[in-house]
Amino acid sequence: MRIVSADTGGALLDENYNPIGLIATAAVLVERPYKTAKLSIAKYSDPFKYDLSGRMALKDETFLALKLAKKVKPDVIHLDSTLGGIEIRKLDDPTIDALRISDRGKAIWHELSKDLQPLAKRFWEETGIEILAIGKESVAVRIAEIYAGIYSVKWGIEYAMKEGFVRIGLPRYMTIEINKEKILGKSLDSREGDLYGEISMEGKEFEWEIYPNPIARTFMVFEAKS
Amino acid sequence: MRIVSADTGGALLDENYNPIGLIATAAVLVERPYKTAKLSIAKYSDPFKYDLSGRMALKDETFLALKLAKKVKPDVIHLDSTLGGIEIRKLDDPTIDALRISDRGKAIWHELSKDLQPLAKRFWEETGIEILAIGKESVAVRIAEIYAGIYSVKWGIEYAMKEGFVRIGLPRYMTIEINKEKILGKSLDSREGDLYGEISMEGKEFEWEIYPNPIARTFMVFEAKS
Amino acid sequence: MRIVSADTGGALLDENYNPIGLIATAAVLVERPYKTAKLSIAKYSDPFKYDLSGRMALKDETFLALKLAKKVKPDVIHLDSTLGGIEIRKLDDPTIDALRISDRGKAIWHELSKDLQPLAKRFWEETGIEILAIGKESVAVRIAEIYAGIYSVKWGIEYAMKEGFVRIGLPRYMTIEINKEKILGKSLDSREGDLYGEISMEGKEFEWEIYPNPIARTFMVFEAKS
Ligand SMILES: [Mg+2]
Ligand SMILES: [Mg+2]
Ligand SMILES: [Mg+2]
Repeated sequence: MRIVSADTGGALLDENYNPIGLIATAAVLVERPYKTAKLSIAKYSDPFKYDLSGRMALKDETFLALKLAKKVKPDVIHLDSTLGGIEIRKLDDPTIDALRISDRGKAIWHELSKDLQPLAKRFWEETGIEILAIGKESVAVRIAEIYAGIYSVKWGIEYAMKEGFVRIGLPRYMTIEINKEKILGKSLDSREGDLYGEISMEGKEFEWEIYPNPIARTFMVFEAKS
Repeated sequence: MRIVSADTGGALLDENYNPIGLIATAAVLVERPYKTAKLSIAKYSDPFKYDLSGRMALKDETFLALKLAKKVKPDVIHLDSTLGGIEIRKLDDPTIDALRISDRGKAIWHELSKDLQPLAKRFWEETGIEILAIGKESVAVRIAEIYAGIYSVKWGIEYAMKEGFVRIGLPRYMTIEINKEKILGKSLDSREGDLYGEISMEGKEFEWEIYPNPIARTFMVFEAKS
Repeated sequence: MRIVSADTGGALLDENYNPIGLIATAAVLVERPYKTAKLSIAKYSDPFKYDLSGRMALKDETFLALKLAKKVKPDVIHLDSTLGGIEIRKLDDPTIDALRISDRGKAIWHELSKDLQPLAKRFWEETGIEILAIGKESVAVRIAEIYAGIYSVKWGIEYAMKEGFVRIGLPRYMTIEINKEKILGKSLDSREGDLYGEISMEGKEFEWEIYPNPIARTFMVFEAKS
């Protein structure tokens, strides 16, 4: 099974470890044996202008997943919304009302589906590829999350080269290693079976450190300074 | 404390990683230091005829646990139903109604208790051994789950020798290693403190692989081909 | 960020692994990189007289945290109550009623806040240090929990020297190692990023063992005998 997925993560943190805004959306192509991405692309946000209260992320993720999917023609697309794997093209208002999710979740999906449902329907008609709301059940979504963390770190290193310092909150239970010209991200959840990702990076001179976020157990903080 | 427990698991999977049916029920004797089984037995189902919607499993598990318990005379029997450790012989209708579980759980137990309550009562009167609905709190239940995965793999290897190929979904966060004439199963949850199991197997020629189930995060897939 | 936190844990267990009472409250000073304590103190309870039904723990923890905080002047105090990080000095009755917690949780806090709210208010007025109900989100609370386990083991070793034997249930998913004159406690949750603690101990002759609690999955048991 060839899966395209996307997720958003990595948060610029202030000095009290509170998030200022999210940094990167990553889309990945995941193939057997489903431990890492065969291909990945990223789109950066401006964390200083990020609307943390909004539902910007899922739309960004859908667009980026479609961009990659048009190129690599996967069997299926997995989005990070945990609705039991339902097809987005089927999410009309009565179907959303019948979902076993919170009222807030329903309100968000009534709004989101206005754009995403016709988009998914058209994409399916043209390509036969389904877009599924599978969320945390999907290994591909988790790999996309790890890549979002890796790309956030890449962004952070460039930011630190210019501004002197950066502090980033990584996605849940993942850590980062930097070797020469690679950024490696690894799941810290032993139950996931060694999921990881890596991207290359131009050689730069900087110090970095990774440590637990004191106010968000199981989340790690990445810091770099030039 | 000497504990007998039983659990069912390991699912034959189709090409889309959807379960066709469950494979094995395992009963185990677990003694100090409670990391593996001292003794285990298994009963196989026909996964092609398995009623995934039913509650077949818990009855099979009770019968298999009793079979082992009659032989090894444990101090207690643990079943995989999370009702706070209540004694099965006490599960009459008013007691079931007073449990803090879902209505669906109550309906299932009203049905199940018709058979299991008198069985547990008789067994307790004859032997003094209690049968407890302790479920996920029990390490013995988890060890039984790991053995159900191991026996499923054993079944799968034999199936692959005849049919050429098998794909099995293992119980939650466990992995398999095969060395010469042993099948080893290990918990992937670091918090559990290194629970494992192993059974012997006749030497056979086959290829095998283990990897994350792409649509069921924290679950692994075992494949073998002859 | 310099954080003082406190937690209570480690339970004396009977022969059926049921808790008799809790053993130790630990307060810790946690600083960057937030993996262990820079300083720790403990207060022991009498587990044979412990009221397991009560809410004794949180008061003990607050008093011990304040004792340490007066000495080390941290930036903030973290208590083990998961109320989203709200300041204890703001917990008046209408605020408690507005919390999104269970009715039982509200009843407990209506009672607790009578003592703790004025105490926190006075401490904040004098020092500017906030006391937050952050609970399981805090790495410092988790480190305090690990230290409570370590001090319980220290108590247990002394108990076993006098009484011959001790069996202790450790706080959730942590394990203990004893080397020469040190007791080392380590988180078993791989997602937490290697949290640990250690205290020194006078050299003593005893045997010890650690193994999974058979009726409390992910909890370990420590035993010592002289
Ligand atoms: Mg997401
Ligand atoms: Mg089961
Ligand atoms: Mg506590």
